[in-house]
Amino acid sequence: MKKDVKKVVLAYSGGLDTSIILKWLGDNYNCEVVTFTADIGQNEDLNPIKEKALNLGIKEENIFILDIKEEFVKDYVFPMFRANAIYEGEYLLGTSIARPLIAKKLVEIAKKTGADAISHGATGKGNDQVRFELGAYALMPDVKIIAPWREWDLNSREKLLAYANKHGISIEKKPGKSPYSMDSNLLHISYEGLILEDPNASPQEDMWRWTSSPKDAPNESEIIEIEFKNGDPVALNGVNLSPANMLNALNNLGAKHGIGRLDLVENRYVGMKSRGCYETPGGTIMLKAHRAIESITLDKGAAHLKDEIMPKYAELIYNGFWFSPERLMLQALIDESQRHVNGVVRLELYKGNVIILGRSSKSDSLFDAEFSTFEEDEVFNQKDAEGFIKLNALRFIISGKNGRK
Amino acid sequence: MKKDVKKVVLAYSGGLDTSIILKWLGDNYNCEVVTFTADIGQNEDLNPIKEKALNLGIKEENIFILDIKEEFVKDYVFPMFRANAIYEGEYLLGTSIARPLIAKKLVEIAKKTGADAISHGATGKGNDQVRFELGAYALMPDVKIIAPWREWDLNSREKLLAYANKHGISIEKKPGKSPYSMDSNLLHISYEGLILEDPNASPQEDMWRWTSSPKDAPNESEIIEIEFKNGDPVALNGVNLSPANMLNALNNLGAKHGIGRLDLVENRYVGMKSRGCYETPGGTIMLKAHRAIESITLDKGAAHLKDEIMPKYAELIYNGFWFSPERLMLQALIDESQRHVNGVVRLELYKGNVIILGRSSKSDSLFDAEFSTFEEDEVFNQKDAEGFIKLNALRFIISGKNGRK
Amino acid sequence: MKKDVKKVVLAYSGGLDTSIILKWLGDNYNCEVVTFTADIGQNEDLNPIKEKALNLGIKEENIFILDIKEEFVKDYVFPMFRANAIYEGEYLLGTSIARPLIAKKLVEIAKKTGADAISHGATGKGNDQVRFELGAYALMPDVKIIAPWREWDLNSREKLLAYANKHGISIEKKPGKSPYSMDSNLLHISYEGLILEDPNASPQEDMWRWTSSPKDAPNESEIIEIEFKNGDPVALNGVNLSPANMLNALNNLGAKHGIGRLDLVENRYVGMKSRGCYETPGGTIMLKAHRAIESITLDKGAAHLKDEIMPKYAELIYNGFWFSPERLMLQALIDESQRHVNGVVRLELYKGNVIILGRSSKSDSLFDAEFSTFEEDEVFNQKDAEGFIKLNALRFIISGKNGRK
Amino acid sequence: MKKDVKKVVLAYSGGLDTSIILKWLGDNYNCEVVTFTADIGQNEDLNPIKEKALNLGIKEENIFILDIKEEFVKDYVFPMFRANAIYEGEYLLGTSIARPLIAKKLVEIAKKTGADAISHGATGKGNDQVRFELGAYALMPDVKIIAPWREWDLNSREKLLAYANKHGISIEKKPGKSPYSMDSNLLHISYEGLILEDPNASPQEDMWRWTSSPKDAPNESEIIEIEFKNGDPVALNGVNLSPANMLNALNNLGAKHGIGRLDLVENRYVGMKSRGCYETPGGTIMLKAHRAIESITLDKGAAHLKDEIMPKYAELIYNGFWFSPERLMLQALIDESQRHVNGVVRLELYKGNVIILGRSSKSDSLFDAEFSTFEEDEVFNQKDAEGFIKLNALRFIISGKNGRK
Repeated sequence: MKKDVKKVVLAYSGGLDTSIILKWLGDNYNCEVVTFTADIGQNEDLNPIKEKALNLGIKEENIFILDIKEEFVKDYVFPMFRANAIYEGEYLLGTSIARPLIAKKLVEIAKKTGADAISHGATGKGNDQVRFELGAYALMPDVKIIAPWREWDLNSREKLLAYANKHGISIEKKPGKSPYSMDSNLLHISYEGLILEDPNASPQEDMWRWTSSPKDAPNESEIIEIEFKNGDPVALNGVNLSPANMLNALNNLGAKHGIGRLDLVENRYVGMKSRGCYETPGGTIMLKAHRAIESITLDKGAAHLKDEIMPKYAELIYNGFWFSPERLMLQALIDESQRHVNGVVRLELYKGNVIILGRSSKSDSLFDAEFSTFEEDEVFNQKDAEGFIKLNALRFIISGKNGRK
Repeated sequence: MKKDVKKVVLAYSGGLDTSIILKWLGDNYNCEVVTFTADIGQNEDLNPIKEKALNLGIKEENIFILDIKEEFVKDYVFPMFRANAIYEGEYLLGTSIARPLIAKKLVEIAKKTGADAISHGATGKGNDQVRFELGAYALMPDVKIIAPWREWDLNSREKLLAYANKHGISIEKKPGKSPYSMDSNLLHISYEGLILEDPNASPQEDMWRWTSSPKDAPNESEIIEIEFKNGDPVALNGVNLSPANMLNALNNLGAKHGIGRLDLVENRYVGMKSRGCYETPGGTIMLKAHRAIESITLDKGAAHLKDEIMPKYAELIYNGFWFSPERLMLQALIDESQRHVNGVVRLELYKGNVIILGRSSKSDSLFDAEFSTFEEDEVFNQKDAEGFIKLNALRFIISGKNGRK
Repeated sequence: MKKDVKKVVLAYSGGLDTSIILKWLGDNYNCEVVTFTADIGQNEDLNPIKEKALNLGIKEENIFILDIKEEFVKDYVFPMFRANAIYEGEYLLGTSIARPLIAKKLVEIAKKTGADAISHGATGKGNDQVRFELGAYALMPDVKIIAPWREWDLNSREKLLAYANKHGISIEKKPGKSPYSMDSNLLHISYEGLILEDPNASPQEDMWRWTSSPKDAPNESEIIEIEFKNGDPVALNGVNLSPANMLNALNNLGAKHGIGRLDLVENRYVGMKSRGCYETPGGTIMLKAHRAIESITLDKGAAHLKDEIMPKYAELIYNGFWFSPERLMLQALIDESQRHVNGVVRLELYKGNVIILGRSSKSDSLFDAEFSTFEEDEVFNQKDAEGFIKLNALRFIISGKNGRK
Repeated sequence: MKKDVKKVVLAYSGGLDTSIILKWLGDNYNCEVVTFTADIGQNEDLNPIKEKALNLGIKEENIFILDIKEEFVKDYVFPMFRANAIYEGEYLLGTSIARPLIAKKLVEIAKKTGADAISHGATGKGNDQVRFELGAYALMPDVKIIAPWREWDLNSREKLLAYANKHGISIEKKPGKSPYSMDSNLLHISYEGLILEDPNASPQEDMWRWTSSPKDAPNESEIIEIEFKNGDPVALNGVNLSPANMLNALNNLGAKHGIGRLDLVENRYVGMKSRGCYETPGGTIMLKAHRAIESITLDKGAAHLKDEIMPKYAELIYNGFWFSPERLMLQALIDESQRHVNGVVRLELYKGNVIILGRSSKSDSLFDAEFSTFEEDEVFNQKDAEGFIKLNALRFIISGKNGRK
């Protein structure tokens, strides 16, 4: 049963699939189509997009092309990295964290243009549909959502191409385009499909589009310094950088030194396992550096609590619950801890390795050599440890005294 | 107030400090001393130990030197790696996991020899005293514990040496002995003290005793295959190995390829921060491989539950609660999940990098390409996703419908 | 699109709705129908069921009526109570815990009779459909499931009655039948619908079918003793009872004394809130008694770990994940702790109150008056507390010393 | 080794023990003594305190008697109740929550009077010493703490009385004073010691000083309405009340109706079990009411997250970590959720029972009868449930399809 739709905002990449969706929406829902294209750091030329959209019959005032890189890094990437978020022990959530922002933009444009629906090109088998739609429902509860891949019968490459031909949609592939299913933004690139569908097969070197192989990375290492303020990186080698510029600079460093490749099998929210390869050069450096600065500025209680709630926080982001009350609650907990996460981390980058060389914090270091030294000290009474241990052991002692085994 | 001690079992390394303790115990407690020395893979020649102990006046029947490497890896290291345990996001718990076993052996020997006390050479500022003593109290609740470093007044190097001289204890240093405070076993080496007491200073290359620097590691990578059974590695490149032999072989591989160095600041259980450098070559490979085999054999619910409880499990081990009821409960949970963790992981080792090339499990793979494929499939009804998302979003929709923001 | 079904096992209560389903299945799926009716303690006369099923055209060999009360209490209720499971701070999971067992029986009968499908009478808006179906899929992954309420157009009372009339299904109501939507088993009764759909309206006294009102309960209290073994109640007032008999006896006591009524608003798994009233007389006593026996037999570490994982465990049961790996893992953790939960609890029942009078355990008590006494003692060195506190405070002291606020 | 103390602030109750401490401090530390006495709702006449202190030689400007009831309820009790905090499934933390505030006041007075130490009358075996001292160290890291019970040799009643006699301290007992060890404040009274040291013995009715026995409570129930704002109770039966007045009013209601008695065995932080009886009349009502208003105003995700972190939060308060970073982080999480906890709860009080009659929230209810109704509705598509269940079951289906068991 078709929804009754008046005007729909489509997340439009300019590629073949979303161009077909663009046409299909108008034809099947008989509704006005608004396009939204984001520059989220995917490193593609967005100039031709407007032309394409116009050619496909979109009105000029209905074409939205926005640079959201700074918002992306400042309000999505950085808050997530404050949590040291990792999904299933490995994945840095590069795709997951971009989706809620795109959902937010779709909704903002829908409200601005009076649209009652949004549409996206994510398939019915993946996580991205969930992330787009949970985000949209959270921000615009009465929105209608059209997910063509779950609805149409264009379920083979042939049918798609036939449809494109019939509707005058250009099907020529960009030269050099990757055969893999990719997602890309300022935080990462992901690869899925083809040979990766066999988890026991390893990808060819030429799959990777961003980072050098550790083997091809420079033989000379490079030492950098990152300054953190309230848990966020603010300066690189002494130079203040905006969030997006910071991530971009770290990406360049990481990519050069073969840092941030991952090859993993993950559990999708929709229930099956899936294999993905990821490049997150700057994020990999950032995570390691953030943990290092936290290691001297966070108290044990704070650090351990963060570690305990992290898997849940990461799962929420992976599953698309960025705008849920529970993510906001966890963020409040995390951000409360980051007031003190200020200081500088020195790192060495070398052929895939991110090596911590030092960390310091003038304002917030809790490292006190006087206490931890192996030399004599005046501040710690070693006899205190006896009572500490005795009372920690008391339950074992009582248990034994009472004959329990 | 001195405890009344009849016979004490001392964890005796043969080094200067525990030799002094050996003498000091007899003099100050007027008690018989039993020595226990473990070969836990620390790669030292234990042959001279017996001679040394005899020279210091220990009766032959009171000298115990045991090879506990297999027990260490099988009953301590492997169970811990089933949990993917990491303390504070980085540390593989190489020292922590050895202490409870030593405590257990001390208690076993105490019971066998009729001793009523144990003693160790750990300082009053560190974690190891806690781990030894909690372990001992849990296994022998009425044990008396003598921790000389918390009691005596030999609190400077000069006083120690004077005491040694006075009692005829050899103070000559082994040639090439590290100036750092080290702990070492089959799982790792740790370094503390000296320059490391400044968290902003990085160690000289010559501090590291085990692994090659990534920079000095071979230019050729090496590909290996590890087979897991019930979550434990059982074969390397098709050859079955005992637990200790497996870890030893992985150590050799890791050390050769510059794998497993860590430089971190950690929170000690006794309350201060401390900086340590660690080498865990085999463990680093094992952890990565274990996560990879779990990624295709563990169900999402099982995997996420493991990740959620891991920080607590790691903290228990770090703090010395290996024999506590709660560690046993968590181990029961973890082990229940490992029945299905069977299969083979293929990895590439290269200059500090452990790269997953593939994972397979004939008996237990949950990876089903038919479901995850980007091609057409016959098993997944994409329309199901709509209901899935709709009901997951329902609380947001209701919230919005009721005007909440 | 109708599934192709050969033979279906229906969870058949004998009531109007499942009688209509019975007919509707045969008519719409053109398949053989097998009925399963459970005596799970719902306190209804099951004798007429067979006759009813025969009358509706079911073959005698396809009619299954089983008493599953003992299995229910022993393998479902008791394991759950070992965890002190409560959903959302209030609900004792009386309906939730019965559903997986019914799913298991449906699957067992399906396998026995060669059926390829199961069917149930739960609506498309509730939790029970989820619990039935997740259970069935877990135990018989290729099972087909027919949920008529999600499929048919008999979506009003009138249409249902018309259908019943047309197919000769008796629509006479049992005299005294509750107008509320009820579920009932040996653990509880639930009420939903009607006036309860306004969360601000309180039910009439005559809604409650089982327990006395606290106001009408006896003016004399009653004292009872429950003995626990490995966490399960095994004897009441010194008399050993089977699991179902134990729960039955506690139900009678609780019902008499006005114990176990609840009125709450809960969050359904499918996304909306719902208001329910519950009677769990025996369960309420059992929970309180179980906590009391645990209070002297569980070590602090064990008790706190159980409390921490309990909400997740309860949520899994509420949501229908009884047969999931993660529920089994949590159960392994819980059961490991219950080895020591042995002893006797004395309680007083009075007008809705369950009052603990005493608890004792000859074999496993960890309560040691010598340690906890306010009188002088010989076992506890109060000076130990100073070191204990000092090291626990050390991170605060260091933080302050370093000028952090 | 005695600390070098110049001026000490003593938590002074005016009773025998702290009067002895007052003298003992001056004699043993040769320091000026400042007294602090709090009206925290313990319902004792504080007028004689000043006279007593003067008589014991304290200078008038060194005597501090403060009413801290409003601060106690507003900044300590209410924030804790926002979390629905319960320790070990039963205890409402009535003593625990008062200690950090007293520590804070001691420190404030120390800073004001230039004192370098604080002192308290808590024993070396209990939790209160920990709570006082952790609080003090957190707020004044260089404070010296004198805990006479851990230091002196007045470790029997006789020695204490002899000391009192010798120093002219009145030892006459207040008539009617309880023989139990009690703590009391506006939230609760606790009883320990004597017959309670046998966990199998139940206390005499005359132990309880505050609440009626349920058996003696009125035969008529009483219906009340509590209004919540941001999670805190602000009005009773339509009348706005300050925090302390609110708790006081609820206490009177609860005490009258026999509400809030508890008899339990708990695990002290210092390692042993201890038995306590508690009266928390108002708190018991407040907790039940708060859960009820949350049940319609908190989203499922928010509510479950709160339940999951609650045991840890309660443990932190019990153990004395109120001023720790991790308690502040959890509080940030909790408070973030309470923005929406607004509305009115109607309850009936009857002989120990707190019965929820209704809950409503004009601004923030998430209860939507249109969705939850058992009648026909226009908003919920029951077919959505099929996809929801199918994808939730997918991992079981895949597991089965691949032959796993």
